[in-house]
Amino acid sequence: MEAVVLAAGQGLRLEEEDLKPLSKVLGLTLVERSILTLRDAGLEEIVLVSGFKGLVLSDFLAERHPQVKVIENEDWPGGSATSVLAARNHVGDRFLVVMCDHIFEPAVLRALLSVQGSFVAAVDSHPQYVDVAEATKVCVQQGRVVKIGKHLEDFNAVDAGALVCSRELFAITKTCLDRGKGEWNDIKREWVEVLHRDMKAYDLRGAFWLDVDTGEDLKRARKFLLGRLPRSRDGIVSRYLNRRLSCLLTGFLVETRLSPNQLSGLSFVLAVLSGALFFFGLYPLVALSGLVAQLASVIDGCDGEVARLKHMTSQYGGWFDAVLDRIGDAAIIFGMTHGLYVMTGQPQVWSLGFLALTASLVVSYMESRYESAFGSKMSLGRTAVPAKRDARLFVVMLGGLINQVGLALVALTLLASIEIARRLWIGYRRADV
Amino acid sequence: MEAVVLAAGQGLRLEEEDLKPLSKVLGLTLVERSILTLRDAGLEEIVLVSGFKGLVLSDFLAERHPQVKVIENEDWPGGSATSVLAARNHVGDRFLVVMCDHIFEPAVLRALLSVQGSFVAAVDSHPQYVDVAEATKVCVQQGRVVKIGKHLEDFNAVDAGALVCSRELFAITKTCLDRGKGEWNDIKREWVEVLHRDMKAYDLRGAFWLDVDTGEDLKRARKFLLGRLPRSRDGIVSRYLNRRLSCLLTGFLVETRLSPNQLSGLSFVLAVLSGALFFFGLYPLVALSGLVAQLASVIDGCDGEVARLKHMTSQYGGWFDAVLDRIGDAAIIFGMTHGLYVMTGQPQVWSLGFLALTASLVVSYMESRYESAFGSKMSLGRTAVPAKRDARLFVVMLGGLINQVGLALVALTLLASIEIARRLWIGYRRADV
Repeated sequence: MEAVVLAAGQGLRLEEEDLKPLSKVLGLTLVERSILTLRDAGLEEIVLVSGFKGLVLSDFLAERHPQVKVIENEDWPGGSATSVLAARNHVGDRFLVVMCDHIFEPAVLRALLSVQGSFVAAVDSHPQYVDVAEATKVCVQQGRVVKIGKHLEDFNAVDAGALVCSRELFAITKTCLDRGKGEWNDIKREWVEVLHRDMKAYDLRGAFWLDVDTGEDLKRARKFLLGRLPRSRDGIVSRYLNRRLSCLLTGFLVETRLSPNQLSGLSFVLAVLSGALFFFGLYPLVALSGLVAQLASVIDGCDGEVARLKHMTSQYGGWFDAVLDRIGDAAIIFGMTHGLYVMTGQPQVWSLGFLALTASLVVSYMESRYESAFGSKMSLGRTAVPAKRDARLFVVMLGGLINQVGLALVALTLLASIEIARRLWIGYRRADV
Repeated sequence: MEAVVLAAGQGLRLEEEDLKPLSKVLGLTLVERSILTLRDAGLEEIVLVSGFKGLVLSDFLAERHPQVKVIENEDWPGGSATSVLAARNHVGDRFLVVMCDHIFEPAVLRALLSVQGSFVAAVDSHPQYVDVAEATKVCVQQGRVVKIGKHLEDFNAVDAGALVCSRELFAITKTCLDRGKGEWNDIKREWVEVLHRDMKAYDLRGAFWLDVDTGEDLKRARKFLLGRLPRSRDGIVSRYLNRRLSCLLTGFLVETRLSPNQLSGLSFVLAVLSGALFFFGLYPLVALSGLVAQLASVIDGCDGEVARLKHMTSQYGGWFDAVLDRIGDAAIIFGMTHGLYVMTGQPQVWSLGFLALTASLVVSYMESRYESAFGSKMSLGRTAVPAKRDARLFVVMLGGLINQVGLALVALTLLASIEIARRLWIGYRRADV
């Protein structure tokens, strides 16, 4: 199945110098975001129709995404329908049409593609992220789109700008163009209102999608995309502190050329640095060490965030990050223990350090080993013990700031041990079920 | 789909006092092994036909496997065909018939069940584990059984004693019984040789299966089942040493009531004991500590082996075992480090202990985290670095025996660090593919 991306328009409402498809949101041009989203949704064959400043666009894509087939539509001033028609020799029986300036989640497109039917339109009965006044409205009856238009009064959803079509579309498009109707919406209206043909409505029900017309929209897209980064499985420190800071940082980092794996490496280097600073057991330095550990913890969120924003998530990246995190954890606890030994001269602190290290690593091990055995995340219930990495490194920071490294190691050990016991118990109960 | 287990015969060739279905191989009666294998193959509805000493058998099953439907066949002296007929009111359109005295792997039955067709017989063109002279032979032509019999001369496979049937069978069985043909083989012969009906042959091609008729067969079954325990992913020490010892031990342990989880616990206790003995840094004790660590490593194989032999494997069991292993690893390395510190008085040994612990735990973490990310085992290539648990605990034993705990810690650290670097490299290359 092919995807047709319409990117021929002039984008007059965008007060930017750039060509609209090349406007950037969070380090990624609109056109690249479209392409990567389609690819993540499982669509490998992408046909992009350019028009206004088409040469600039095709040069850009030839360099970055040579697999994308770029079709130059010289008739673009005649309206978006001419762009749809321009794709006719490059698609099969059934294909998806999207706008270059619409931002979707891949999961939304995947769900749309799984719906049976020759014509299936993505509509949204509860739009959350778009200005309804500016949107194309639709009237849906019994799961079918029956009316469509910008100024519809009896609408119950808006058109989300993604339509699965069959080839029948092209004949209609030609007829419409001959009659001077040149917009993509004209074709859809012809289909449902004049020809009374079938167009299924797939309701997004408030899922994330938006379109970008103005400079204001670009800013809103940025805000919404950043706002979607926190994860339901974030630990308590992450939820209230780290994620907020990392999202802020990510807003900048995503504009740079730093890759997610490089950010994982940076977080690792900071963890090792924190351990090295703790190593000497000198007070003001110890406070700095704690802060560096916390910074490592914050940056540890940025790699995944940048990866998600730039469609660069990979299983390898997640694995690499997690392995470096464990070695970083060990470096910090080693540094703390050595520093504490220097400060106190008591060899017993080494035993404490061993306990803290073992408990910390085993908590992480239990989680990943559980996933590898059961193929799903361990559901840990509501009463979470703060023993994940975010909480552990927060404890490290507090211990460093108040120069109570020993206390921090005791706290780490206790929190992690309680969590280990709790997880063994959860696993044991689950096994009985 | 139902499974019918034929368990009515007298088992005259078995020189044991027990009822044949209640003869034990490796701690499990033949009848329970049949039931558990069928269940592992996905068959939940099991109908067992008893005959000779039927009351003993039904009492046994009522207590241990109340979900199994036991049908008493009073006509059992008339031959095995009467037992098939006795099941007629308890099965649907398509069902599987197996003998209680045949041992299969669940995977073999699953594969058989996935073959389309009203009649599908499991046959074996390359029988590895049965006495062909005693077996029922079949002649297979173009994927169909065309002749069947104990004394067939032009055979090209043997009947493995598992047949998928349709209800049509029962009418034939009645006719045969009326004509005085009472054996299960008579019915099959009638079907293919007299009626020339279709019976697909599913060739097991030397897969593991055997039948138990004599006391000698019981011993062979035991030997073969134990011989199948080593795993392709075993480390080098496991392959040449631990697995041989653990298989020997498992031969005894499987006859006891010790559960696999209890054996995991035992291995953990031994690891902690080893750490506790290392703790004091006293030489002859250190040698014992090393031996206890190695014993823990051997017993660590027994839990999984007993679980597989008794059809008690569980995702939880594997997880529980792995988590205890990591804590046990830490206990041993902690004990070694503390003992070394007592012996040498040098605080630097603690740093060495930290390194050894971190490297050991990270090797294990990398493996499970990889599986949770990629959903498959990490393929580690041919040139394996001996850094898995079997090799690590073997190094610990050697270090203890020659009183070179420090050297053992250095070796642990080096082996594990090389393996960590190697795995990062493998993961990195894989990510590029």
